[in-house]
Amino acid sequence: MWTVTAKIIDGKARAKEIRSSLKKDVESLKQKGITPKLVVVLVGDDPASHIYVSNKEKACAEVGILSETHKLPAMTNENDILKLILKLNTDRNVHGILVQLPLPDHINEENITNAIIQAKDVDGLGTINMGMLIKGEGDPLVCCTPQGVIDLIKTTGIDIKGKNAVVVGRSNMVGKPTAILLLKEHATVTICHSRTVDLGSVTNKADILVAATGKAKKITADMVKKSAIVIDVGMIKTEKGWSGDVDFEKVKEIAGYITPVPGGVGPMTIAMLLKNTVKAATRSAGIK
Amino acid sequence: MWTVTAKIIDGKARAKEIRSSLKKDVESLKQKGITPKLVVVLVGDDPASHIYVSNKEKACAEVGILSETHKLPAMTNENDILKLILKLNTDRNVHGILVQLPLPDHINEENITNAIIQAKDVDGLGTINMGMLIKGEGDPLVCCTPQGVIDLIKTTGIDIKGKNAVVVGRSNMVGKPTAILLLKEHATVTICHSRTVDLGSVTNKADILVAATGKAKKITADMVKKSAIVIDVGMIKTEKGWSGDVDFEKVKEIAGYITPVPGGVGPMTIAMLLKNTVKAATRSAGIK
Repeated sequence: MWTVTAKIIDGKARAKEIRSSLKKDVESLKQKGITPKLVVVLVGDDPASHIYVSNKEKACAEVGILSETHKLPAMTNENDILKLILKLNTDRNVHGILVQLPLPDHINEENITNAIIQAKDVDGLGTINMGMLIKGEGDPLVCCTPQGVIDLIKTTGIDIKGKNAVVVGRSNMVGKPTAILLLKEHATVTICHSRTVDLGSVTNKADILVAATGKAKKITADMVKKSAIVIDVGMIKTEKGWSGDVDFEKVKEIAGYITPVPGGVGPMTIAMLLKNTVKAATRSAGIK
Repeated sequence: MWTVTAKIIDGKARAKEIRSSLKKDVESLKQKGITPKLVVVLVGDDPASHIYVSNKEKACAEVGILSETHKLPAMTNENDILKLILKLNTDRNVHGILVQLPLPDHINEENITNAIIQAKDVDGLGTINMGMLIKGEGDPLVCCTPQGVIDLIKTTGIDIKGKNAVVVGRSNMVGKPTAILLLKEHATVTICHSRTVDLGSVTNKADILVAATGKAKKITADMVKKSAIVIDVGMIKTEKGWSGDVDFEKVKEIAGYITPVPGGVGPMTIAMLLKNTVKAATRSAGIK
């Protein structure tokens, strides 16, 4: 008796490829006198946020993007953040603006996210970029994690068109935009969530399964279709270390392709942030 | 032997109820000095568009909304339409602006739709209202047909939460926003379209089935789950008269509830346009 285990989708390697391609784009931009610049606004002392921001800075440096981080105390008021964003909006040397989420409770996240002008909204979370995304209008800056998910699916070489794709989770940052991108690729798309009755009976039919529930090992082997592509967006700190949404060890005996955690979607999110920043810089110069 | 046929969801009657409730809202607004006003821009000679616009005018009159239609020749250039919209945007007596679609080929529909300010975009097709809709942000003006679809489903008294809802069609006017609204009501939502493989196997599992394909009788009895709620958005002119997307006569022997064509979703679309106009007028006055 033998089992064929899933091919591991190596997000770390794929992200590296993207970064080295972006490095060339950045060099070519610099020759035209443009140095892409990302400004990150970080409010408060959340340790995880500080780690994320530091990883973003490192990734920027690697591809030649200038980065600058405004670290503001947790008690900063909303107006001061808005003023900073308005200043960055009109600064011609700044191409991308990112406000690290979550923000402290006294600050309205929507107000802040929507203050960033569409052209510099490299997180793609503003209302205009999201509206463009759902309408299929123009060429929006698309949120980073969903872009990374689609890219990883495409690395398998399997055509998304006509496949049954199931997204578990309906957040604004992952679930909903991922569903829209899969629809654009002509998948038949189902969105599940905490109110879904008999989740396994839905995920069982997924040729492509994207798990973004934030619950460790929520997706078990019995919930996965044989040979499916399984993309695990989860990144949950447990007593035994990092865990994804998917019970990796058992699901990999069923799936055809699977992303690990860490080293799957995570590195792709940052790569797509860099990609959006280079895109924004290129456009600001009127090159594309 | 006997068969139980579906209950007919009477969109005409429900739309009438909505109109009579709106009539009271309009009277109350008038007592506060506000007369809701809808301006329709109609470009060209498409006979169907002229009929739709005339129906909208009649419906406005019935509930006491002022309406005004700008009929422009087919060769009108885009700039002239944009100038008219900009004027209407700043006219304090105008609460809703609607550009009848489709527009002639030489005019960019996106430019026109997006020129209408969010607060007066009573068709809900602008990028900002669509972005707010997908993000679940604030209280957008939601496109009329999807609003009508949800309202009709609710008339059955059946809770949408946890149900399998399937939307066939992925247009910006119907399919995508309807899916988002169903998701907001906590349904598990699947979006199908022309590239869906074995459509019947998906629709067969739908507790709630919304058909918006634009293809006459595309949904046949074998594709419908017993006792399902079937909402037919189609309105196709055939040699035998008007047809929906659903094979009504046969599907009604299977479904639990079904909308007829005409007299189902159609009248609801106009009712929701009136509702959006009254909402816009109420807000402009700072009452809500």
